[in-house]
Order: sequence, then structure tokens, then C-alpha cells
Amino acid sequence: MASSDKSRRVWRDVTVFDGDQTLEGLQAVIVEGDIFVDVLPMADTDAALLDSGEDMGSGGVITPGLIDCHTHLVFGGNRAEEFEARLEGVSYEEVARRGGGILSTVNATRQASEDDLVASALPRLDALIADGVTTIEIKSGYGLDVEHEMKMLRAARRLGELRPIRVVTTLLGAHALPPEFKDDSDDYIDLVCNEMIPRAAAEGLADAVDVFCEKIAFSVSQCERVFKAANAYGLPIKAHAEQLSNLGGSAAAARHGALSADHIEYLDEAGIEAMREAGTLAVILPGAFHTLRETQQPPIEALREAGVPMAVATDANPGTSPLFQATLMLNLACTLFRMTPGEALAGMTAHGAQALGLNELGRVAPGQPADLCRWHIETPAELAYAVQPGRLAQRLYRGELTEGLSNER
Amino acid sequence: MASSDKSRRVWRDVTVFDGDQTLEGLQAVIVEGDIFVDVLPMADTDAALLDSGEDMGSGGVITPGLIDCHTHLVFGGNRAEEFEARLEGVSYEEVARRGGGILSTVNATRQASEDDLVASALPRLDALIADGVTTIEIKSGYGLDVEHEMKMLRAARRLGELRPIRVVTTLLGAHALPPEFKDDSDDYIDLVCNEMIPRAAAEGLADAVDVFCEKIAFSVSQCERVFKAANAYGLPIKAHAEQLSNLGGSAAAARHGALSADHIEYLDEAGIEAMREAGTLAVILPGAFHTLRETQQPPIEALREAGVPMAVATDANPGTSPLFQATLMLNLACTLFRMTPGEALAGMTAHGAQALGLNELGRVAPGQPADLCRWHIETPAELAYAVQPGRLAQRLYRGELTEGLSNER
Ligand SMILES: [Zn+2]
Ligand SMILES: [Zn+2]
Repeated sequence: MASSDKSRRVWRDVTVFDGDQTLEGLQAVIVEGDIFVDVLPMADTDAALLDSGEDMGSGGVITPGLIDCHTHLVFGGNRAEEFEARLEGVSYEEVARRGGGILSTVNATRQASEDDLVASALPRLDALIADGVTTIEIKSGYGLDVEHEMKMLRAARRLGELRPIRVVTTLLGAHALPPEFKDDSDDYIDLVCNEMIPRAAAEGLADAVDVFCEKIAFSVSQCERVFKAANAYGLPIKAHAEQLSNLGGSAAAARHGALSADHIEYLDEAGIEAMREAGTLAVILPGAFHTLRETQQPPIEALREAGVPMAVATDANPGTSPLFQATLMLNLACTLFRMTPGEALAGMTAHGAQALGLNELGRVAPGQPADLCRWHIETPAELAYAVQPGRLAQRLYRGELTEGLSNER
Repeated sequence: MASSDKSRRVWRDVTVFDGDQTLEGLQAVIVEGDIFVDVLPMADTDAALLDSGEDMGSGGVITPGLIDCHTHLVFGGNRAEEFEARLEGVSYEEVARRGGGILSTVNATRQASEDDLVASALPRLDALIADGVTTIEIKSGYGLDVEHEMKMLRAARRLGELRPIRVVTTLLGAHALPPEFKDDSDDYIDLVCNEMIPRAAAEGLADAVDVFCEKIAFSVSQCERVFKAANAYGLPIKAHAEQLSNLGGSAAAARHGALSADHIEYLDEAGIEAMREAGTLAVILPGAFHTLRETQQPPIEALREAGVPMAVATDANPGTSPLFQATLMLNLACTLFRMTPGEALAGMTAHGAQALGLNELGRVAPGQPADLCRWHIETPAELAYAVQPGRLAQRLYRGELTEGLSNER
């Protein structure tokens, strides 16, 4: 490494959470261009090496850029009115009669242009960027026909061009049954398998395919048809499963080689075992649990014992998790589900990456892409312990610095 | 009003939550210097009047500046290590043996200089400022002797000089029993009444006096001694009461003319009636409920029916509510306690002010101090519905504009 290398940057005396654990003692972190070059204990590090790069500051905690591996960030409208009406005592039936619920988001999303969807998602994306997110997964699932699902995926792709963030897209055609297919859910699954998946694959719009396996959505056998169709096109799969009841969707997803099963409050031992065998991750979504005031806890202790890696994500969506703040999820995962701060943070770094099949991300390690956050805190646990916007000092995405993030004045 | 008045500023086409309700239709808001001059329906407003002031922007929602009427923002250290240890399975006894709990904060606070306390509180204060807070109450209560309690109050006062925010201070000597007074709680109450209160009053350091009325803290009769001492010095009183059990502290506080009873999860009908008669407000603190994973809900419906105004606050503190985000409390108050978005927002504006005895604040109304927030949202309910940092477009404190708050780029 030539000492004149202009692209070398050095952080000193930082505490490093490497995606898996907090390294002992203070470290130096060295980046060249868009790649992590080294993480070295300060005590062992040659001053000449430290002086050979641009001084990017010292102190605080460095973590991998956060990875939000499960979001529905693109949608039309919002559901504030419904939120308010329910709290003002309007019955669920009356809300439904007024066109509330997921279908109100479907209507608003269908009516929105691709530009509208991009414009309305940008402030939410900016909130997540300012909170340290460098990789975000965004699902379709409010179009529920071929054109509007593709429109959502295109909008998601464009968000990644407009902002310094990696966007991973997921086709979630099998999110809910659209009104046009009332009582014809198998026909709708035909549409997902025979038209949406081929089209998304042909146009390169989807990085994965997801389903909602639940009594109020699609059956295990319907989801398995979607998995097979996705696998036929070489697309990885994942599933919303065991959120409201135990149907065995997680085990089915695991048998088809799913990257992850998400929500999983009602997951049982058989499901955990199937996931462990298949290498399917658990994605823990405390925002929906909070918003829906659920009481059934996901089986954190059993997943931990089985060695199934747990990711944590916002589930950002207009109905059941209108929470556009990644670090809040760290607190919720610990407080509501008794995950440890280290597990929660791994869940939004190394394990979040793994849930997207991007195993090289989410780590502060030589040779990996330089997605990095430096925080104004002393220990990584503080990120989960306190909810306090404005602690992000620096954020690097592929080596590119985002400035002006912290509240410091 | 002369059209050449340089200090006149005008917002157009804004939706206004006035501290109590959302006004019908779009409004113009006019400020002169540090005072609200008028809130006028756009439809009825003369163009010449609108053009007579500086154009401050149009659209979005204007609310009063947020009022966080119950915080413990000044403290030494933090409790992230304890938070992590508990989640990693360390027993409560072992945490206590390691010096955890409130006494660890007392030790750290006593060891900190006044400058240290100011410096460590500033980032937390900045987070609240960036979230729209223009008035904050800050309690002592981690010094637990005369000098350290006064040091905390001086630190709180200095925060108000360093930042554009109104700081209201509260002496909370009767927060916990310091180790020096183990088994001598009456002697400690003597110290609070005979030394702390007179000293704080003489030096103008406290705007009010608070107590923690609970089995693990002080009895009703001990608290009443503090109330009498405070009243003798002309200081308003308030109480942490009925948080973990029903001792009747709220009713006792009301009988002594308290501004508010705070927490009140276990408040009964007699307590509500005493508060209603005395005009004592209820301060609802969902952050502690969340952090402690409580299940006993405060009696929101009964308070609503009795017409006892409800304030909402962060209870920002290192142990039971390390949550330094005011708007998060709006979401928690609605989601956890089924308050309406309008009630929650009134709780952090007009009712928050009333809980501090500052009845002229927390309102967008002619003649009132121009503390104002403009938000990038369409309806006030969105503030409680979605948790999304970076939606604050402008914040005015006594007419002074704080720029660079939103994520907009
Ligand atoms: Zn989801
Ligand atoms: Zn308190």
C-alpha cells in the first residue's frame, strides 16, 4: 500500500462491531476506495500506516452499514386516517366499509404513477439513510396485477439510483388476494407463477420472490407453487410465515431452499428444525408485533439454541409497521423479544445480509465492500439501549461518504 | 400592522393543530417577532396581508413546538452495560451486586462535574430539539444530596442557555433513598425539606418540586411533607405516583394542589376524582411502560370521561426510558394506551404546557409565544401514526428559526 494513495482513509481509536461481535480494545479501520482493507488493534498498528491515509476521525463505534432486509417501502397513500379512526372508536367493520386495510393501499398504489411512488418513498428512504442503512430490501405486493407489481419494482430500482444505498427488490405478488380474484385464489396464484415471475425475471426487476403464507392470505400449497415457479427462474425465495398462526409455511419455504422465513411468531420446533437443516434464516420483525399489539413471541431462545441465524428488519409498511427507523428495531428486538444487543445488531448487519443472500455484506472485514457507520456512542450496545436519532456521525456506502447526518452543532 | 414590518413572517396553506384540535381547512399563520399574531383561514385572508410578511413556505402541518414536560435528561454515565447484561441472562441480583440500577446513575452523576453533566446531556437535548421540542422540563434526582442536586439543577439551567429551548427545572430530591440514609428515610426527607428546597428556592434553581411516591421510594406521608415544604416556598409540586402500585400518591398530590401526577398506571377512581377536583393533570409516560414491559395500563378512558387533561412526555432517563425522541411517544401513547392522535399531540403541546403551569404555551393562538413546528406531513395524525425522524421542516423557538432539521436533500 503506497503511502501516497489518495483513496486510503483511516479511522483511529474506534470500537468495532464487525457484524458478528464487538472486537476487544480500540481499533484502526482502514478503507481504500470502496473496500475495507484492514481492521487492526490500535496497540499493534504502525503509526506510519495510520498516517498514510486521510484522517477520518477517531473515537466512537464503527459498525457495518445497517441492512434492512424486509421492507415494503414503496406504496401509495398512507393509513394515518385509518390509524386515527380506529383509535377514535370506529369499528373494524366500519373501517373496512370505508375501504380501509391493505386494499386501500392497493388502490392508492395502483392509482399512483411510478414517479409518484418514487417521490413518496424518498422521505422514508432518507430517514433510513440518516439512521445508518446502506442496504435495503423493498418488496412489491400492493399492485397485485402484473403491470402494477412491475411498476412497484421499477420504482424500487429507481430509489437505488437516486440515493447512495443498495436496493434489493423482491416480487411479493402473493401478498394478498386482489378484489378481481375474489374466491379465485388459485387463479391468482396462476397469474403470479405464469406471468408475474416470468416478467420480473425477464426484465431483471426482482432479486427474489416472497409470499404471505397465512389463513388471511395464501395456503402452504399455493405458496409452494410460487416457490417452484421462482426456483425455475433461478430466483431465491422467502416467506412471510407463522405470523398469526402456525401453518407450516416456514418449513415449506425451507424445503424449497428459502433464504429466510419472516415474522415467525408461531414457529414450532419442526419449523425451526427444517430451517436449521436448510440454512434458512429467521427474520425477526418487532415493528409489526408492536403495531399489532401481538402477544405471541417469536421463539428466540429456541432459534438461538438451534443455531438458526436471526436477522432483524423494520418491515416498514403503511399498515402494520409504519416505523421508518432502523435503530428503533434494535431497541424493540431487545425490549420486546429479549434478544441481546449483539444479536439485534448482527440481525441488522451480517445476518441481515445473509437473509438477502449477500453474504459478503454486513461485515467490517478485509476485502468486503466499505459500507460503514460511525456512531457517536461508546459501546455498540448503546444503539439498542437508547433510542436517540442523530447519533450517526458518518456513513460510508461503497466508500462514498454521506455528510451532515448527526445532530451535532 | 405596517406592511414594511421586517419581523412579520407568513406561512401559507398549512394545516394547523392549535394545541387542542386540528383547524378545518388550510390556514395562514402569521408571526411577528416572537409572538403569534394570527391564524386565519386561507379562504378569508387578504392577499395584501399575506404579502406583507416574509414568505416562510407553504404546505405541511404546523403545530405548537412540542413540550416534553417530564424528563430526567441530566445524568452521569448510562446504563447500556446493565441493559446488555440483563438481556444476556445476568440475574437482577448480580446486576445489583455489580452496582447497577439507579444507584449506579447516582454514583456517576455525583462523580461528574457540572460541565460533564452539561456535555453529556447536550446530544440528548439536540435529539429532542431536532424532533421539535421547544420546552423541556428537566428534573434533578440523581444527586441525592444538597450539593449534587444543586449541581444537576445548574446543569439543567445551563442547557437552556446553550440551546434555543426553554428549560423548566424540577427538584426531585425525593427520587430515591441515597445509601448514606439507608434505614433513615425520614431523616433524608428532613434533608430534602429543610435544606434542598430552601437552597433551590433561594438560588432560583427550581421551578417546581417532585417526589417519587412508591413502596420502593417514599411513602405518601413522606411525600406530603415535601409538598408542604415546597408550597411554603411558593414552589409548585408534582408527583411520580401509582406507577407500580396504588398508594394514593396522586390523590395526596392533588390535595396539595399539584400541577400533575405522573405515570399513574395504577390510579383508581378516587385518585381520578381528586385530580379532577384539584385541576391536577395526568402525565402519561409510555416510554417507561415500554421499557419495563409493564402490563397495567393507565386509566385513559376514565381520565377522558372525567375530563382530566392528559399530558404525554418522554420520561427520558437512563434506566427506565432511555428514549430521547418526543414523536416516538406520540406513537407509543396511541399504540400502547389507545390514546387518539389528537389526545397524544395535545399531550405534548397544550396539556404538556399546563402540566408545567405554563398555560400560555403549547398553543398556536394570537398573543402566544411563537414556538412552532412545521412538519413535512399532510395531517397531524401522521405524527403519531408513523415513526420517521427527519419530518421536521422548521422549528421556531420564541420566533427564532432552527434550520437544517429535516432529512430533505
Ligand atoms: Zn412484510
Ligand atoms: Zn420520571
